Amino acid sequence: MNTPLARQFRASVACGEWQKPTSGQAPGFTQANVVILPEKYAFDFLLFCQRNEQPCPVIDVCESGVTAPPFAAPGADIRNEVPRYRIYRHGELECEPDNILNHFTNGLVTFLLGCSFTFEQDLLNHGIPVRHIELERNVPMYITNRECRPAGVFSGPMVVSMRPIPENLVDKAAAITARYRKAHGAPIHVGTPEQIGIADLQKVDFGDPPEIRPGEVPVFWACGVTPQMAIQRAKLDLVITHAPGYMFVTDVRDEDLALW
Amino acid sequence: MNTPLARQFRASVACGEWQKPTSGQAPGFTQANVVILPEKYAFDFLLFCQRNEQPCPVIDVCESGVTAPPFAAPGADIRNEVPRYRIYRHGELECEPDNILNHFTNGLVTFLLGCSFTFEQDLLNHGIPVRHIELERNVPMYITNRECRPAGVFSGPMVVSMRPIPENLVDKAAAITARYRKAHGAPIHVGTPEQIGIADLQKVDFGDPPEIRPGEVPVFWACGVTPQMAIQRAKLDLVITHAPGYMFVTDVRDEDLALW
Repeated sequence: MNTPLARQFRASVACGEWQKPTSGQAPGFTQANVVILPEKYAFDFLLFCQRNEQPCPVIDVCESGVTAPPFAAPGADIRNEVPRYRIYRHGELECEPDNILNHFTNGLVTFLLGCSFTFEQDLLNHGIPVRHIELERNVPMYITNRECRPAGVFSGPMVVSMRPIPENLVDKAAAITARYRKAHGAPIHVGTPEQIGIADLQKVDFGDPPEIRPGEVPVFWACGVTPQMAIQRAKLDLVITHAPGYMFVTDVRDEDLALW
Repeated sequence: MNTPLARQFRASVACGEWQKPTSGQAPGFTQANVVILPEKYAFDFLLFCQRNEQPCPVIDVCESGVTAPPFAAPGADIRNEVPRYRIYRHGELECEPDNILNHFTNGLVTFLLGCSFTFEQDLLNHGIPVRHIELERNVPMYITNRECRPAGVFSGPMVVSMRPIPENLVDKAAAITARYRKAHGAPIHVGTPEQIGIADLQKVDFGDPPEIRPGEVPVFWACGVTPQMAIQRAKLDLVITHAPGYMFVTDVRDEDLALW
């Protein structure tokens, strides 16, 4: 892989030069959600991901104490190449450091999970508008009435993101995103928000309210906030994640993620 | 799910009425490889499967001490609904019992992995010949020069099965099997056996030698013997599997496995 762009970007994060959200950075390279937790929970969490692949697509796992994602970014260091981290203890946010060099220990397992940035870029490439990007807002997200398949200490509802899509482009948007099963895949629902437990699209649970224009249909994709909710509900003694929007940039090209 | 056929078949296994291989039984229902191992190895094995999905597609996992596959066969008992088991200690075959009621303990985790029976039926349904079934032989299998991605104590080469396919049907066979990513998916290689380290197709590592007719191309699929080899190499203190050909019949319909 010729990956200077991803490596350069991570280097600028590591040296403190880049301290902002990662959206739009190192274009063409897959960005990932980060979850780091004690090894005693690693089987349960991997199984939760296996059972709920659409919200929790596993791109790579660093085994206990390993700091370089062996397949997605073998030269990287997960401890200082994310611009902002969150450290939770017993479900409570403790701090948001810009590195975890002093927090990472041998007993921690790191998971990289796919993120919708990958397919949003491909939607744009194919002429499908992505409203929240147009408006420079955060994507609207909702807690649904669909329960994830539980695994060990992890359980919770599926959270979805919503993008309003012109009616005649819904099939195309579904086909494009279906290619990226490591980035949430095809929509889990189209239209009729009430069927998945959303009473009012303007009342978002996370992100910003949507702007839906005439002739557009709300299309719902599984969302990476799902595993975050399951983790917070489990109130583990320690979890480290990326801060929302401050992702880890992998060496995996977006187009390769389709076959990852 | 309306699954009387699968349930009836498992009941006939449980009461000792059915003691033979399962090929062709409960047609339309997905059969699975069974791997049962101590929970201390469960994370490593699940990660090995996650990293090597084509040879090791996970259909379901029973958490420690659980005897009913929660999603693939919630009413089943994994301890006596496989016609023949194999018990290995430290990599050595100890016995081949017809139930494991006295061997199964609370600390054991059960994995169900997809099997090529699923896609072979679909190939036949689409008019693509499956030679070893025609000839009532076992499928030819080979150890390749491709290493699996290791995980913890598990590592080893990818093992493939081979089916000779008429040249003009290779694309169709690839497209059909690609639908079943939980049953090994698309071929990993077509033609040129030497490129994957197979010097002589007549010298099989497992199964029976092939009969390749004029105009046919050897097509190679990832094979469920891959995780078995990785497990044997790891010489775990205890592993229980199905005996080759004596599979676990799930409640999952073959056509549903495409979306599993």
